[in-house]
Amino acid sequence: MDRRNFLRTATMGLALAAAPISFSANGSPTKRTIKNGRLNLSFMPYELKLKHAFNLAKNQRTTTPGVQVELEYDGVVGYGEASMPPYLGENVESVTKFLSSLDLSQFSDPFAIEDIHEYMDNVAPDNIPANAFVDIGLHVLLDKIMCQPWYRFCGLNPDNCPNTSITISYQSDPEEMRKEIDETEGFKVVKVKMGIGHDKEIVDKLRQYSDVAICVDANQGWNTKEEALEMCNWLADKNCLFVEQPMAKDRLDDIAWVRQRSPLPLIADESLQRLTDVRRMADAFDGINIKLMKSTGLHEAYKMAVLAKALDMKVMLGCMTETSCAVTAAAQLSPMVDYADLDGNLLIANDRFDGIKIIDGKVTIPDRPGIGVTLV
Amino acid sequence: MDRRNFLRTATMGLALAAAPISFSANGSPTKRTIKNGRLNLSFMPYELKLKHAFNLAKNQRTTTPGVQVELEYDGVVGYGEASMPPYLGENVESVTKFLSSLDLSQFSDPFAIEDIHEYMDNVAPDNIPANAFVDIGLHVLLDKIMCQPWYRFCGLNPDNCPNTSITISYQSDPEEMRKEIDETEGFKVVKVKMGIGHDKEIVDKLRQYSDVAICVDANQGWNTKEEALEMCNWLADKNCLFVEQPMAKDRLDDIAWVRQRSPLPLIADESLQRLTDVRRMADAFDGINIKLMKSTGLHEAYKMAVLAKALDMKVMLGCMTETSCAVTAAAQLSPMVDYADLDGNLLIANDRFDGIKIIDGKVTIPDRPGIGVTLV
Repeated sequence: MDRRNFLRTATMGLALAAAPISFSANGSPTKRTIKNGRLNLSFMPYELKLKHAFNLAKNQRTTTPGVQVELEYDGVVGYGEASMPPYLGENVESVTKFLSSLDLSQFSDPFAIEDIHEYMDNVAPDNIPANAFVDIGLHVLLDKIMCQPWYRFCGLNPDNCPNTSITISYQSDPEEMRKEIDETEGFKVVKVKMGIGHDKEIVDKLRQYSDVAICVDANQGWNTKEEALEMCNWLADKNCLFVEQPMAKDRLDDIAWVRQRSPLPLIADESLQRLTDVRRMADAFDGINIKLMKSTGLHEAYKMAVLAKALDMKVMLGCMTETSCAVTAAAQLSPMVDYADLDGNLLIANDRFDGIKIIDGKVTIPDRPGIGVTLV
Repeated sequence: MDRRNFLRTATMGLALAAAPISFSANGSPTKRTIKNGRLNLSFMPYELKLKHAFNLAKNQRTTTPGVQVELEYDGVVGYGEASMPPYLGENVESVTKFLSSLDLSQFSDPFAIEDIHEYMDNVAPDNIPANAFVDIGLHVLLDKIMCQPWYRFCGLNPDNCPNTSITISYQSDPEEMRKEIDETEGFKVVKVKMGIGHDKEIVDKLRQYSDVAICVDANQGWNTKEEALEMCNWLADKNCLFVEQPMAKDRLDDIAWVRQRSPLPLIADESLQRLTDVRRMADAFDGINIKLMKSTGLHEAYKMAVLAKALDMKVMLGCMTETSCAVTAAAQLSPMVDYADLDGNLLIANDRFDGIKIIDGKVTIPDRPGIGVTLV
C-alpha cells in the first residue's frame, strides 16, 4: 500500500493547535517557527503475518492483529504502531475506537508528552497498546524535529547495546526442528518457549547441534511451584541465563517461593505491565521484562528501567510480534538493559520498515534521527 | 570579566574526538556533520556574594565559593557551574584539581552522558559538585545543539511549574526583620530556617504581617525527636506545608519516629545526595529535596524524581546559593515536582546570567533552547 492510499484509508485530521517550535541549524539560541502547526494522525489496521506458527503454552497463532499509524507535522512524518497479542485484551476494533475518540486538538504543545499520556490514560486507562502507538509516533516525530536519535536524549551509548535472543518453537517434525535451530545461527542467545509439553525435549534437541546460551520463557505454563523449581534446577546445568514468567501471573507468592530456591534469575513478563506494577514485582522476581506495548510506549518504558535498576532488579527489554517500527523504538532503550529479546520483526513476513539490525548477535541502532526507521 | 578574559583565565583545551553529529533544519532524516568536532572546557573560580548574611543552624555565611565553566563545541557555548556549600566537603581547590585531572578526549560522542558520568564517578566518586557542573554544561551544550529547551526531552509542560519559596532569616533588629519580610512580597511560599534559637519567634514576626504559606527548613537543627515533634505540631497550626530535615542527617530512626506522629510531611535534604540514597529515605521521610549540586546534575536528578514518585514520595527541588545558570537548570525539571525552592540566584549580588523568572510567585522557564540562560 503506498503512502497516498495509506492516508486515504483512514485519515483523521486531528488539529493540534501548535505553539511555535524553536529550532535552528547552527545551534544558536535564536528561534524559528515551523510554518504549519497542525498534527495529522492517520491509522489503518495491519495484520502481521508470522513466518512460523507460534506455539505458546495455551494456544497457537499464525498472525497478530496490529494497527499502523502516521503522525505528520509540518512535513515531518512519525510512524507508530500497536501490536495486540490476545492476552492484553485489546483488538483492532477497540484500538481504532479509542483512537477515534481522542481529541488532541486541546494540546497546544506536541512536546507535552506527560500531559498527552495523562489525557489518554483518562480516556481509556486500559487501552495500553493504543497509548503505545501514539507515544511511539510522537517520539518519532519529535525526535525528528530535534534531529537526533532518541537514545541521545537519555545519554545512552549505542555501543552498549546487548545481544538479543532469537526464539525457537518446538516442532514435532525433526526436519522442521532442525530448520528452526539452523535459523538461529549467528545469535548468541536462543529463547526457548516452555510450558507446552516438550520442555526438556526442545533443549535436548538444541544441544545436539549447539551450546549457545539459552533463556527460557515459560509463559505462565508451569502449574506447580515444585515443577517450576525442578525445571529451574534442570536448566541451570544447560547454560541457561534466566527464566521468564514461570507460573501464572497472579501467583506471586508461589513465584517468590521458587525464586528463593532457584539458581537462575526469574524475570516477570505477564505479571507486570506498567510503571506502577514494578515495585510489587521486587519480592517475587529478580527482574522485569519491559515491552513498549505494555508500558504505553518509550516515555514510561524509560522510567520503568530507571526504577527497576534503582530497585536492584535486572532489566529485560522485549517486544511483541511487531514490525521494525516498534522493535527499533525499543532498541533505542536497549543500551541500558541487561537482556534484550528484540526479534519480533524477524518473525513476520510483511515488515513495512527498515530499522534495527542484528549484527553478530548484537542489537544495532540505526544512525538516523528519531526512532530511526524508514519505510521499505 | 568579559568572555575573552574568562577564557584566558583558565582555558583547558580538552579535545573530544567527536563523532559526526546529525541534525537538519527541516527535520528530514538526512545528516549534517558539525564542522569542528572539538570540545573546549574552560573554568574559573567565582565567589558568590550574598545580599544578606546566611544564618544557619551551625554557622553564618556572607559568600559561597563557586566555579564557573564554559563548554564550547563548534561555536555553541554551554555554561555550567559548581556551587560548594561547606557541608558537601568540597572547595574551589578540590573542584579545580578534579577538573584538571579529567581526560575527556577518550569519549568520541559528547552525547554519551551516561558514560561520561560513569567515568567522572570513577575518577573522583565523591566530588559531586564538579560532576554537576560538567553535567549542566553538557546539557546546555547538547540541548542547544538539539535546539530545544531541556524540559521538552522529558515531555514536561512548563505550565505545570510550581510556586517557589523564598527564604527569610531571623534578624534580631526589628527593622531588618521587617525588611526581610517585605522582600518576600509576591511569593506564595516563604521558607523559614529553623534550629537556630528563634524558631517560633521568626514565625510569629512573619505572622504579624502576612498569612502566606510557609515551609520550614530545620537544617538538622533540632536535637531530640520530642523537640522535633513538638515543633511539627506547633507549625501545623501556622499554615506550614512541610518540614525539611528536622534532625541530624544520620538519625533516620528518630526521624521515622517523628514522621509517624507528625501532622506535617517531612522532607529529606542533608540525609540524601544521590539516586542510590533515595530508597532508604522512604521509611523516615515523606519526600526528598533534590539539588543538582548533590545529584551530580540534571541527568541523575531526573532519575531521582522518577524513582521518588514511583515510591509515592513527594519531590522537592532545591538549590544552593548559585547563579541563574544552575538555578535555571533545576527549573527545567520543576514541572514534575511538588515543591520548589529555587531562590538561590535571588540571594546573590553578582549573578552572571539571565534565566529563570519568578512571576506571581511561580517558577517560569525561559523559552530558549538548552537550559535557557544567557550572560548578562
